[in-house]
Formats: sequence, C-alpha cells, structure tokens
Amino acid sequence: MPSFLLDQTLKADTFEITKLDLCYIGLMNDKRYPWLIMVPMRSDITEIIELQPCDQIQLIKEISNVSAHMKALFKPHKLNIAALGNVVRQLHIHVVARHQEDSTWPQPIWGHGENEPYGSEKEETINMLKSTIKKE
Amino acid sequence: MPSFLLDQTLKADTFEITKLDLCYIGLMNDKRYPWLIMVPMRSDITEIIELQPCDQIQLIKEISNVSAHMKALFKPHKLNIAALGNVVRQLHIHVVARHQEDSTWPQPIWGHGENEPYGSEKEETINMLKSTIKKE
Repeated sequence: MPSFLLDQTLKADTFEITKLDLCYIGLMNDKRYPWLIMVPMRSDITEIIELQPCDQIQLIKEISNVSAHMKALFKPHKLNIAALGNVVRQLHIHVVARHQEDSTWPQPIWGHGENEPYGSEKEETINMLKSTIKKE
Repeated sequence: MPSFLLDQTLKADTFEITKLDLCYIGLMNDKRYPWLIMVPMRSDITEIIELQPCDQIQLIKEISNVSAHMKALFKPHKLNIAALGNVVRQLHIHVVARHQEDSTWPQPIWGHGENEPYGSEKEETINMLKSTIKKE
C-alpha cells in the first residue's frame, strides 16, 4: 500500500491538531470561523465512495466525534460539514462551526471574502483543540 | 416516536425519487446540476450527531449508494456532498454531481445565480433516477 502524503495545499493551510485512526485533523488558518479539515489517511482517494466500506464507517464515526467536540467548544448555531474538493482533489471534509454573527451567515463559507490568518490567539486555539479532540 | 414530516421548503424544492431505509431522496428542481437532497426520516434532527449511531452508519451507507449511482449516471468531475442547513434547519444532505463545464465550477453551488427549474426533461430525469436509486 502506498504511504499517505497530505496534500501540499492542505498542509500549508492547516495546523495539525491530531491524527485519529483514519483522519488527519487540521485547523484551517482562518480565524473567521472555527474550521477543521479532516483528511482520511489513505492514498489516492478523492471521493468518499472510493474509501473501503469499513473506512466509510470509521469516517462517519470520526466526523461525529469531531462534530461533538466542535459543538461543545464553540456552541455554534449550526455545523456545516462538507466534502467538496473541486480545487484540492485529495478527499477532505470541512467541519465548520457557524454562528449567526459570523461574516457570511447564512451563506456557506466558501468563496466569500479573504481568509484571516490566526495571530496571537493561534497557540491557545490549537492547544484547546489538541486537548479535546482525541481517539475514542 | 413522533412521525417524520418533510420540511415544507424541501418538499416544495424537490421531486421525490424514492425512500431508502433511512433517507427520503429528492431531486432538486434546478437543472443546472444533477442535485439530490437526502433527508433522514427522523423527527426533529438538525445535525448528523443528533442521529443515533446506527442511523449515522446507515446514513454513510446511503450516501455511498446514492453517490455511486450519481457517479455512474452523470460522470461528474467531482461529487460535492454537504450537510449545511443554515437556512432550512431539518437535517438534509446535498449530493451534487459537478462538471468542469457547469456554471459555477469550481466554486460551490450555493449562493451563485438563480435556480433553473426543470422543463420538458423533468420526467425523463426523474424516471431515470427512480429506476436506478433503490434500497440495497
């Protein structure tokens, strides 16, 4: 089995939080939203249906795990969960905690405005997520 | 257990294709994209994490089932799969077959342009989907 390599764009855009059994979990470097990226650590996968059935089940379990922590930490009005991948082909799932006060509510976040990189709050946010999101 | 009622907006915006074990499957009335809406038939659910674990597993199986048929029927460049729900609160999952030639590629479809309702091709599209997407 070829080894998994995280896509270079995803690597550049995220801070690693942890690796679960299936997914790399990264914090998107955009402080406008609590925004995680989940990447199944399998080679050459662009669609959920290309994952083995057991990996698909592990994926929904990990989405649920991550979602529950995002909900508890950030008290969103709604979670937005999406596998798009029109630009970056490597399968990745966005998990975004949306608030009615955020800058693009109620529109989806993609294609609106510019990313706002984390500043001094970066370490605190990463450490909070690292201490919370773990293998179950 | 209270009975499931499809949200009125989702009902108005879609043509019923079928009901799988968990999800109502509707064709979005927008011929710009092959675009299905999957609605878990459980009452008062807005987030995937509110589904019972067995329903979460059934959901990913049905997403995979529907995705495979969308891929075979429409030969998309990419599938876009998303649970957003910022406007319509009832949990629903978009499964959209995207092509590089479609009007918003590579942007996500939401918030771009106006829906284009089906015309004379409606029955053919619905019948094709009905004859393909079935319980496994």
